[in-house]
Formats: sequence, structure tokens, C-alpha cells
Amino acid sequence: MEIEKKKLYELNRRAFPDEICFKPIGIILTPFKTLKGIPIQSSISKVKGRIEIFKDYENALKDLEKFSHIYCIYHFDLIKLPVPLQSKPFLDNTKKGVFAIRTPFRPNPIGLSIFEILQIKKNVIDILGVDVLDKTPVLDIKPYVSEFDHRSQTKNGWLNGKVKYKES
Amino acid sequence: MEIEKKKLYELNRRAFPDEICFKPIGIILTPFKTLKGIPIQSSISKVKGRIEIFKDYENALKDLEKFSHIYCIYHFDLIKLPVPLQSKPFLDNTKKGVFAIRTPFRPNPIGLSIFEILQIKKNVIDILGVDVLDKTPVLDIKPYVSEFDHRSQTKNGWLNGKVKYKES
Repeated sequence: MEIEKKKLYELNRRAFPDEICFKPIGIILTPFKTLKGIPIQSSISKVKGRIEIFKDYENALKDLEKFSHIYCIYHFDLIKLPVPLQSKPFLDNTKKGVFAIRTPFRPNPIGLSIFEILQIKKNVIDILGVDVLDKTPVLDIKPYVSEFDHRSQTKNGWLNGKVKYKES
Repeated sequence: MEIEKKKLYELNRRAFPDEICFKPIGIILTPFKTLKGIPIQSSISKVKGRIEIFKDYENALKDLEKFSHIYCIYHFDLIKLPVPLQSKPFLDNTKKGVFAIRTPFRPNPIGLSIFEILQIKKNVIDILGVDVLDKTPVLDIKPYVSEFDHRSQTKNGWLNGKVKYKES
């Protein structure tokens, strides 16, 4: 098994962390130079951009080009902490818990978008469906796999019937 | 607009970060006390667990109970860095780039699972579809919204036809 071969910290010495730190693995380049006019979700964006993976990580992109979509996990780096725990989402006028909305104003300002892959050349992924500010730091890229990531018969809470195109 | 009302760092003073640090907002409790026997994806797991959101963040859960599923973003806290940039996934025998597989052994060991919500009481979310080790630190919870998060006609790269139930 893969897990056996790699280096892990020992389970019996594990301590719950106070803080978890990551280094960006790339940068998202988009036409959105300010926070105005950004589509609020990648699913409703027709905008192109690109992800430049830093050269040190280029070899980690091997085999990704045969997938059509990726999850991109990134940092909303303009958000000042702490944030309010409840706020108004773009698509409604009453305050919700921030874990029940997709606002960037979150205790850990982590963004998650699904982008379509247009092409990959060396360390650059050309993407479609951009909903993020230019120069956003990237934390991780994962292949989007419909058999893993589709859920049918979902209940969409307060968003039921409210999804529409909107910009920031 | 929501974005105007909140505190942001100034765009013209923005510097690209060397490191990005987060504080866990909760802990995932699961029956998996070791790394053996964990289902490799939440979509194929029938196992129950719970997420305890730390009391400081309990109010951020308001309105989440009307959603059926969540994205949970967490830290694979046993992974020692650096990791190889290519490795064998659970479902194939040849090495792939780690951004083209869902291995925990990633440059930033960030996990992403979709869990079904069974119930939410105070700061505890009972979940179905557990695929993570007990006591895993949680970074973020977002509502899963089918209209945002479904992609049809995806291409699933090397995973095509290989998805099946498997454990670690």
C-alpha cells in the first residue's frame, strides 16, 4: 500500500495543532484586478485565466491534462481576521452562519473553486470558469472526479431557488 | 455589497505570501484509529462520524442544517514534508503527479471530503461518509451546493473505469 512506503509522523506522538502553515504552490492569474465584478461562483463564470504552478512543483502536474476539471484550493489573502461568524451572502439579505455560506470572509479564508482545464503546458494550467481575484495564492490542486464528487438529491438549504448569475 | 462592509487588506499593499497559516476550527471524530481500513473516498463510505466545531465558532453553523451535504477541508496532520511529487494512487499501479491524484501525500497536505449531514446539535455535526482518520483537524466547512458543484460530462483521466471501493 502506498501509505506504508511514505514518511508519516508517528500516530502515538500525534498532538493536535494550534496552527497549521502552508506554502503557496502557485498563483492564479485572472482579469479581475479589483474586487468588483468577479462572478460569485466558478459554475456561472465564462472567464478564462491561468494557474502558474511554481517550477519546484511542475512535476506534480503529470497526468492532470487528461482530466477536464480541477478543484483549486486557494487563499483569500485580502481578508483581515477575525471575521464575523455570521454575514449576508451575495444571494440573500439575511445573515447566515459563515459555514452555511460561501463567503470569502471565513475564520480560515480558504477558497474552493472548480475550474475547467483548457490546456496544460509545462507549469501553466489555462482554465475556464474564473471567479477569483488576480494573483491569488494557490494551496492545492486536485482532480475533479465525477464519481467521487457528484452527490445527487442534495438539499441546498437557504440557496434553494436562489442561484443566479451575480458578481461581487 | 457584502464585500464593501468588511475589513480587507489594501489591494495596493498586497504582497504575495511565503507562508499561510490557519487555526483549526474543529476536529473530526471517526471510528478509524489507525491508517488501515479507511475508505479511500467519502462517496464510497457508509461510515458515520462527527465533526466537533470548537465552541468559539459554533455560531458560524447557523443555517447549515438545511443543507444535506458539506465540503469539509481538513489537514492530513500525519504527513511529513517534503513529499515526492509523483506517487502511486490507491487505484492504479503507475506513478502519477500528486496534483493528478487524491493522495494525502501532497505538498500542502490538505484534504477535501464531501460528507452527508445527519444532524447538527449545537457545535456537533453528525456525518455520514467518513474517509478520514480519527482526530483530524478541520480547517473549513462549506455547504455543498449542487448548482455550484456539479459538473457534467467530465473527463476523469487515469481514473476512468477504475473507481471502486477500496480501503487504505
